[in-house]
Amino acid sequence: MKKKYVYLFTEAHGLGKELLGGKGAGLAEMASLGILIPQGFTITTEACNKYYEDGKKLAEDLLSEIHKKLKELEKITGKTFGGEHNPLLVSVRSGARVSMPGMMDTILNLGLNDTTVEVLAKETNNERFAYDSYRRFILMFTNIAKGFSRKEMDGMLEEVKREKGYTQDYEIPAEELKKLIVRYKEWYKVNIGEEFPMDPWDQLVEAIGAVFRSWDNERAIVYRKMNNISDAWGTAVNVQSMVFGNKGETSGTGVGFSRNPGTGKKEIFAEYLVNAQGEDVVAGIRTPLKIEELKRQQPEIYQQFADTSAKLEAHYRDMQDMEFTVEDGKLYFLQTRSGKRTAAAGVKIACDMVDEGLITEQEAVSRIDVSTFHYLLYPTFSSEGLDHGVVLTTGNPASPGAGIGKLAFSAAEAKARKDQGEKVILVREETSPEDIIGMVAAEAVITARGGMTSHAAVVARGMGKCAVTGCSDAYIDEESKTMTVNGKVYGPDDLVSVNGSTGVIYLGAIELIPSQMSGDFARIMSWANQFKRLAVRANADSPRDAIKAMEFGAEGIGLCRTEHMFFGEQRIFHMRKMILSKSLEERKQALLELLPYQKEDFKSLFLTMQGRSVNIRLLDPPLHEFLPKTEEQIEELAQALHLSLTEIHTRIEVHQEHNPMMGFRGDRLSIAYPEIAQMQARAIILAAIEAQKEMGISVEPEIMVPFVIDSLEFKKVKEIIVSTCDEEINRANVKMSYHVGTMIEIPRAALLADEIAKDAEFFSFGTNDLTQMTMGLSRDDASNFLKYYYENNILEHDPFQTVDIHGVGKLIQLAATLGRKTRPDMHLGVCGETAGDPLSIDFYHQCGLDYISCSPYRIPVARLAAAQANIKILKK
Amino acid sequence: MKKKYVYLFTEAHGLGKELLGGKGAGLAEMASLGILIPQGFTITTEACNKYYEDGKKLAEDLLSEIHKKLKELEKITGKTFGGEHNPLLVSVRSGARVSMPGMMDTILNLGLNDTTVEVLAKETNNERFAYDSYRRFILMFTNIAKGFSRKEMDGMLEEVKREKGYTQDYEIPAEELKKLIVRYKEWYKVNIGEEFPMDPWDQLVEAIGAVFRSWDNERAIVYRKMNNISDAWGTAVNVQSMVFGNKGETSGTGVGFSRNPGTGKKEIFAEYLVNAQGEDVVAGIRTPLKIEELKRQQPEIYQQFADTSAKLEAHYRDMQDMEFTVEDGKLYFLQTRSGKRTAAAGVKIACDMVDEGLITEQEAVSRIDVSTFHYLLYPTFSSEGLDHGVVLTTGNPASPGAGIGKLAFSAAEAKARKDQGEKVILVREETSPEDIIGMVAAEAVITARGGMTSHAAVVARGMGKCAVTGCSDAYIDEESKTMTVNGKVYGPDDLVSVNGSTGVIYLGAIELIPSQMSGDFARIMSWANQFKRLAVRANADSPRDAIKAMEFGAEGIGLCRTEHMFFGEQRIFHMRKMILSKSLEERKQALLELLPYQKEDFKSLFLTMQGRSVNIRLLDPPLHEFLPKTEEQIEELAQALHLSLTEIHTRIEVHQEHNPMMGFRGDRLSIAYPEIAQMQARAIILAAIEAQKEMGISVEPEIMVPFVIDSLEFKKVKEIIVSTCDEEINRANVKMSYHVGTMIEIPRAALLADEIAKDAEFFSFGTNDLTQMTMGLSRDDASNFLKYYYENNILEHDPFQTVDIHGVGKLIQLAATLGRKTRPDMHLGVCGETAGDPLSIDFYHQCGLDYISCSPYRIPVARLAAAQANIKILKK
Repeated sequence: MKKKYVYLFTEAHGLGKELLGGKGAGLAEMASLGILIPQGFTITTEACNKYYEDGKKLAEDLLSEIHKKLKELEKITGKTFGGEHNPLLVSVRSGARVSMPGMMDTILNLGLNDTTVEVLAKETNNERFAYDSYRRFILMFTNIAKGFSRKEMDGMLEEVKREKGYTQDYEIPAEELKKLIVRYKEWYKVNIGEEFPMDPWDQLVEAIGAVFRSWDNERAIVYRKMNNISDAWGTAVNVQSMVFGNKGETSGTGVGFSRNPGTGKKEIFAEYLVNAQGEDVVAGIRTPLKIEELKRQQPEIYQQFADTSAKLEAHYRDMQDMEFTVEDGKLYFLQTRSGKRTAAAGVKIACDMVDEGLITEQEAVSRIDVSTFHYLLYPTFSSEGLDHGVVLTTGNPASPGAGIGKLAFSAAEAKARKDQGEKVILVREETSPEDIIGMVAAEAVITARGGMTSHAAVVARGMGKCAVTGCSDAYIDEESKTMTVNGKVYGPDDLVSVNGSTGVIYLGAIELIPSQMSGDFARIMSWANQFKRLAVRANADSPRDAIKAMEFGAEGIGLCRTEHMFFGEQRIFHMRKMILSKSLEERKQALLELLPYQKEDFKSLFLTMQGRSVNIRLLDPPLHEFLPKTEEQIEELAQALHLSLTEIHTRIEVHQEHNPMMGFRGDRLSIAYPEIAQMQARAIILAAIEAQKEMGISVEPEIMVPFVIDSLEFKKVKEIIVSTCDEEINRANVKMSYHVGTMIEIPRAALLADEIAKDAEFFSFGTNDLTQMTMGLSRDDASNFLKYYYENNILEHDPFQTVDIHGVGKLIQLAATLGRKTRPDMHLGVCGETAGDPLSIDFYHQCGLDYISCSPYRIPVARLAAAQANIKILKK
Repeated sequence: MKKKYVYLFTEAHGLGKELLGGKGAGLAEMASLGILIPQGFTITTEACNKYYEDGKKLAEDLLSEIHKKLKELEKITGKTFGGEHNPLLVSVRSGARVSMPGMMDTILNLGLNDTTVEVLAKETNNERFAYDSYRRFILMFTNIAKGFSRKEMDGMLEEVKREKGYTQDYEIPAEELKKLIVRYKEWYKVNIGEEFPMDPWDQLVEAIGAVFRSWDNERAIVYRKMNNISDAWGTAVNVQSMVFGNKGETSGTGVGFSRNPGTGKKEIFAEYLVNAQGEDVVAGIRTPLKIEELKRQQPEIYQQFADTSAKLEAHYRDMQDMEFTVEDGKLYFLQTRSGKRTAAAGVKIACDMVDEGLITEQEAVSRIDVSTFHYLLYPTFSSEGLDHGVVLTTGNPASPGAGIGKLAFSAAEAKARKDQGEKVILVREETSPEDIIGMVAAEAVITARGGMTSHAAVVARGMGKCAVTGCSDAYIDEESKTMTVNGKVYGPDDLVSVNGSTGVIYLGAIELIPSQMSGDFARIMSWANQFKRLAVRANADSPRDAIKAMEFGAEGIGLCRTEHMFFGEQRIFHMRKMILSKSLEERKQALLELLPYQKEDFKSLFLTMQGRSVNIRLLDPPLHEFLPKTEEQIEELAQALHLSLTEIHTRIEVHQEHNPMMGFRGDRLSIAYPEIAQMQARAIILAAIEAQKEMGISVEPEIMVPFVIDSLEFKKVKEIIVSTCDEEINRANVKMSYHVGTMIEIPRAALLADEIAKDAEFFSFGTNDLTQMTMGLSRDDASNFLKYYYENNILEHDPFQTVDIHGVGKLIQLAATLGRKTRPDMHLGVCGETAGDPLSIDFYHQCGLDYISCSPYRIPVARLAAAQANIKILKK
């Protein structure tokens, strides 16, 4: 039997997306449900592949099949293609197996020519509309079917507007449009070397070929590469009759949702415009009416819409977003798809639909949009308030949430004013670890420099603090306590509202709406736990973080960064003393003074976590990060250590590095100064022993060695840790298990993971550093050039936010495989910034990791994403 | 048949190193040649494995086999183990399949006890010697056989010396040694819990087990891991009768070479000491005599030595380094091995032996020691001169050679004084690209900071300029033009001699010997070319470099760094203008001004290379490297560009980076500013067109894109290059092929090499950056902590000098395989610093690369190493 390449929508039901593409399958679905749609036919994806096989040509038999279906379509619609009465106009649209938004092309109003345009003008009684449609069709055809830039035709339009003083396209009258059409057709002839085709059949054949070719345009190739879509799938083409909502008072057009997409309430939510085309809504000529108007004017049409809306929702078992047109009192559905909704609506709709028996709990979890879910955790500004807000400046939406307060220009100032009951916003050029105290005190943080992964951004997200970074318009002067934006100066008495979810900063206070974390939210979270396989832990350095993490459902601590504990006033002094010590003895003495602080910190963590896993990382940053930066601090230190200023300066200089990220840090410190690792191991194990005794619950600490590159290196440090721990365990005469493992955050460690696994009991992937090294990309400097990589479609995501699955991911997969080859029960986790990112979590799930560890405020999203990742696999 | 585990030397010939170990096989070899050796037996490597299988025990049957051979040995020697007359004393030594120097243990004089020591004293008529031997034996036995630290016994010895006022061990008289032995034995009893064994058989059994166990000590395990030696090989044990050269006037001991190891001349070269043990030579009690003395005193012994020396040389077909002892007029050979020789001697001996028909040309090439070969390229200080030199300070031997001159403290000063005919040494805290002009002018370079891979070191090696870096004792003050070392101040009038091969700096001028590059050297080089498969290219940025490279036999240029061309006075100005330009137009204008300079540079390179391959890399370093550093330069630039100082400062600040090595550099510049790549591509292709026309030889440039991480990124830049080049080729209407490829220097590029290979026509591995990223190791900062990695045996080599085969090498191998999977004829090279290192070259040969590219002065070594790598494979 000869293969069939073209199907009417009415005969295509059940043939599937692979053959029909997503759009074609949807239209066939509606047709089979008996819903009125503008009729048409689908040319299959197989025809697309045939088109390429035939050397980018539509073969004769394919053409005759299309022609046959076109004749059938004329019969169904009662219209004639190119007819002088009631002419059939069609749209020609691509439709691939999966949605590739904006990647391929569409041509509308095909079938218009010098004759049919007049008929259209008469039938719609709207000459301007008809000629504007014709003008647009010529432009689309030239651009898409013939592949010429639209620049010059757009220029002609602008010229007319300039000459005649029109500011909007819709102000141009029919007469001018007719002249423009003449000029368009002239340009077409000169540049393309032939007349603009008047025969609709010629138009159609060109358009179909163009849509097939658009499968292989550069944008589409890049998009497919990034989304793992096979080049071999091809696109289908849908040829659909046009309907017009501007044929009179019993015509119109509208969009609607089957539930309220803002609140999730179960009610028809739609807008309608009498005697209008969809484009009129977009152009903003007239304000659409609420759907209630339609109910009054054409109650039977309204009822028909409501019934069909319910039918489609029940059929697709999801809230629908529909486009419809009424032509001469007949309701056509142009499109239906799952509707976008706010985070709050998403949660409510999912839960309601479970209660209505429409979907399962598993489906409810898989329906939630992870990309907006975290908004539910923070108070938000009311949309009314935002509408009336006065924008002060904008930056990167670095950490979501809303914060209101007066400007404070240093950490100390923020802390002092907060202590006196004032609400403040910390404003800094950029932040450093010493600003943390001020960030804790502030309602929100603003910086003039730095991107989404700057210090301020990372730390703020870690503490769930609202932050906007990189407000490049703002000049901040700490001395004079001023922030200058576009010549206006703001000071400590100015009140601002910071929207961390959008990056906008407003003058004055904007109304707040509190966060929702109970009810439906809690139901979704508890279902997520049922369906996920990955454990979700928190990155937490203090009991405060740990408590927050447990509130959000953390199952343990996956990363405790001990260095954050060294910035307290007394501690930093001992730390600096340790770093600047000239002899082993001096260093040991300084470490001895740090030990009790560390032990108490760890103990309160163990007590807080009540026997859950706690993974503590040994000192990681280069030592110079702890040294004083200001002349004042240097003087203070010189006095305290009885050293000359010159000596302090010299020693600070010795610690400077050209590329500190690849410098003297992590395990290198333990190899050079084993006594530091020893002190930290002792503090951890003593804390665990005391906590175990006090709670009567067994504690099993995990000790993590950072920045390892070699198995012998790890072995050496593990021996130091083990001998220290065992000594204290024996001395205390208690039973205690503990585990020593390593971070995999340098490519060499990933490449040699099988060797390192001989001694390492667990791996934790540190994707921040692993991404830096694997991509040769300094996180602090990358914002200067990564933008060019996004613009050029070389990279799609910030690789520090969403793991670079293609490159870095290959190394992670390799290390996981090598590690488990040596140690089949190797415990694998990830604790970098990407551990809170849904796309990355999906990948980690596929890699077979055991847990992810992210900042407390990202835990709900992580739990949800982990559940969705698992459900996706279960469904297959 | 029962397996045999023990062989007399006289029955072991031909059993091979696998079974006997290297030492055992050598002794069996000498025995079979009829050369008199102290007899003994070898316990095989299989016995070692059996020892481990039996739970670290010597099984009964093995013991009885050893006992049987010991009895046979008594018969052969006429001596009795533990006998009261003529006692048999033995050494017990390890001997693995390949030499593992210093890794395992040796025990001498085993068989000594309270009885035999007296016999030894009587027979040697040297009581002091006998008791000292006994003392040493107890110490070695305690340390090696029993595994106790020698610290306390050494302490007792020091105590005696301190109390009695002896400064050297050999001053201690027999009486004191006897007392010391009593104390040693007491310590042994208290600490080990048993009497020191008096029964020689017990001593032997313990000693054999200890040598077997030493196979698994930590040092040995690390050494094996680093040298890819299998843990399963095991070590053999050699038990050999002791002979004594101190039995009177017809006894003696000596060492000798079969040729002169200093000059290579064919003559006996030996030293002899009458009535002495080998240790006496080491202890420096007496000055040994030239071998001529032996000739006079015992002519028949001399003749015997000369004959055996010739016999051994002929047998091993290499110059031999021999140890011998004369006991009562009988000449014993204790050891023979290939002798170490100077670079000059090595070349002469190899050539002479070819002429003598002793070895083939291939063998001659494989015999040359690559690690010293490059000394032949530079003038050297005479050894007499060095012996009398006054050391000023020392640093790293960063670039070999010898330089004499007066101190100059800035590049400008060095240049000015050189122009006036003075010879100067450039002295800097550390160097930066702007110092290059001064480095060119200077005879040698000294820096106070930086290691073997600092800027000064790399650039100096590149130009074949002598350099000593990291003289940490030296304080250099450019302002006052002084260098202070240990309180002494040196200035512009002080003359120094810099030895770049040893890192020592001398006061005053030391006599120079010119380099040898003709005669035997040239013969070896031409043979090397016959046997190598790898092409050897040069890293060269200027015609001067290129001429030097061709003199040394370069087959092309593998890396021309265009950035080095931007530092000329006019160029740097246009470069800075380009970098600081505010608009695309301004930048294009500045680039237009740079174009002619670049074109001329490239053209003269093409002309110099006469049609050989020239590979030019597009701009690589971050732009801030070109910006002015001093306030003066900034003011100059501000004036020239009509910009305010503040504006210049602000723009310079914008370019600063936290981790510039992973910053805005390499291909990132081309993605952000395609016009830079365009200008460079145009300059290259115009230069090639002109050069081709002038020479009438076809030119086929290679254009290399640095720092690539992605296939789409490379593709985009390749398109820019290709369209620019094709435009110029078409405009000139000439025929020209050119190739566009990429560096593989970021792990992600290596991981995705198969994708990048779709468009890249060649890969060049940049091991400097690849090592930095793969190991997370900043080259500029690593010297602060890598020393701890060497100390702890975690790393063996500086990974920037010798490629880290285990880690980075894994990535190189992977990328080579992936690249050739996509493009089977993919041209592969390496242009990083390691491309001139013999160990690395051996690895690159094994990886199947096509060429290596190193600095001109390393080319002879690289050619030799490439030949040796190939010969090694051919031999297998």
